[in-house]
Amino acid sequence: MRSIADNAQLALLLEVSSTPKPGNVDREHEYEDLRFEHFITGGVGARRGLERAATGGPVGDAFEQAIAGMSGQSGGNTQFGAVLLVTPLAVAAARTHDDADLPRPLTPEHASEVVAETTVDDAVGFYRAFEHVGVAVDDPPEDLGAPDVRHGADAEPALRERELTLEDVMAESADIDGLAAEYVNGFERTFAMAERISDGTGPVTDRAARAFLEALAAEIDTFVVTQHDHETAEEVRQRAQAALEGDEDVSDLAAEFVERGINPGTTADLVAGGLFVALEGGLEV
Amino acid sequence: MRSIADNAQLALLLEVSSTPKPGNVDREHEYEDLRFEHFITGGVGARRGLERAATGGPVGDAFEQAIAGMSGQSGGNTQFGAVLLVTPLAVAAARTHDDADLPRPLTPEHASEVVAETTVDDAVGFYRAFEHVGVAVDDPPEDLGAPDVRHGADAEPALRERELTLEDVMAESADIDGLAAEYVNGFERTFAMAERISDGTGPVTDRAARAFLEALAAEIDTFVVTQHDHETAEEVRQRAQAALEGDEDVSDLAAEFVERGINPGTTADLVAGGLFVALEGGLEV
Repeated sequence: MRSIADNAQLALLLEVSSTPKPGNVDREHEYEDLRFEHFITGGVGARRGLERAATGGPVGDAFEQAIAGMSGQSGGNTQFGAVLLVTPLAVAAARTHDDADLPRPLTPEHASEVVAETTVDDAVGFYRAFEHVGVAVDDPPEDLGAPDVRHGADAEPALRERELTLEDVMAESADIDGLAAEYVNGFERTFAMAERISDGTGPVTDRAARAFLEALAAEIDTFVVTQHDHETAEEVRQRAQAALEGDEDVSDLAAEFVERGINPGTTADLVAGGLFVALEGGLEV
Repeated sequence: MRSIADNAQLALLLEVSSTPKPGNVDREHEYEDLRFEHFITGGVGARRGLERAATGGPVGDAFEQAIAGMSGQSGGNTQFGAVLLVTPLAVAAARTHDDADLPRPLTPEHASEVVAETTVDDAVGFYRAFEHVGVAVDDPPEDLGAPDVRHGADAEPALRERELTLEDVMAESADIDGLAAEYVNGFERTFAMAERISDGTGPVTDRAARAFLEALAAEIDTFVVTQHDHETAEEVRQRAQAALEGDEDVSDLAAEFVERGINPGTTADLVAGGLFVALEGGLEV
């Protein structure tokens, strides 16, 4: 009964509703300036871009539109990464299934095909999206491969000259960005997340929170590396592992990470992507 | 930047995100079988019906479509009353403003006009909606005025024969149903709620929770009367008043009401309606 766009939006909303996800905003944890209500509003604002993805894309335009809408709240950047993951998946869903099909099972192959077919225009849309979240600056550092994302819309001439598609851009940062890695490796961790959520029992938000913790314990979060450093990210991974094994209290961990400003955002984005795949595959809420 | 449909959906989602609202599901309180995630999913499912309302209606069809979509989750009836209130308000917004207008201030007159123009078809849509939430039964009691809502879609011949519009149907139960009362009194409490939320400061969900408590202290909740009795509803009102005055702890009250199965749902619906009016009027999140 829910459309592809409905499930894409629901994935964003269920992700932030899942608690506890140590260090991230969820329905029981927030920062003074970045609150649960900002994520809810971001999920509503992203809707029209997600609808565009759910009619087949193009990925870059749909992504930029979703980010423009997501930004229409005062908390700032709420779901950039989650939308980045969900957009090509929604495009893949639209290309392989009809809204009337239920379930609409997605495969890594469907998703990879969408990535393989991305164009330079899609890359331009991706860079433009950074304008909406205040990442673009007037004078970013020099770059030789893919332009620095801080170029924002100004990256367009370089992207066109070098004929860089969105896939090319993602491939360049795949080893330092867990979301870019998903684009080039068949959304491996996203699909694994979907499976963990689908196979669980009980409330969906509890299952998603558990899947988050398992993923956080399995691999370092690249957003924590970017915001802090590799050492902090490795500490986060180990303590998530300890929480899984019952040696740390997960609620205390959540409070501490919020306190220290540690947000394993990439892992949360994987939860959103996983929820979308699971919902399309027939997960009941 | 948000459309009328966006704000209608956002109103539903922010209502359930507002905590504490003693006795109601919110992001920190839920029942085992009726959880926060069901309301989030209900708010996503209602989207297409709300979009219909946001293009001008008709009220009855838009309402039925929103309820059909809302019901696509396993928690059951999550936001019937909230949608009942938001639907004519969204139609009023669409008839007086364009999505490009910001803000799009609504007045009680706009809303009353929509109610005055409802037709027998709108009444039929309203009755049909009950089919989706399992209220309709094969053999409801006899009725002389407006048909019992348990007739569901079967009420259609009687509605047509007696030429009852949605306004007529609401007028008949206005003295026992706080939402029907809103339809016939210019959405008085809804607009008052919008004002309280808009005039407040701090997080929107905190303001909405405070406005809920004030409204609960001011008038008995008709849903509590229906589910329990007048005495219980009056107790709820007095204890909300005590919580406002600091003589009761609002969190304890929330826990107790959940425990006793007391859900002041009508007052929560007014919060959703109030949030929609406030968002259309330019409330920032």
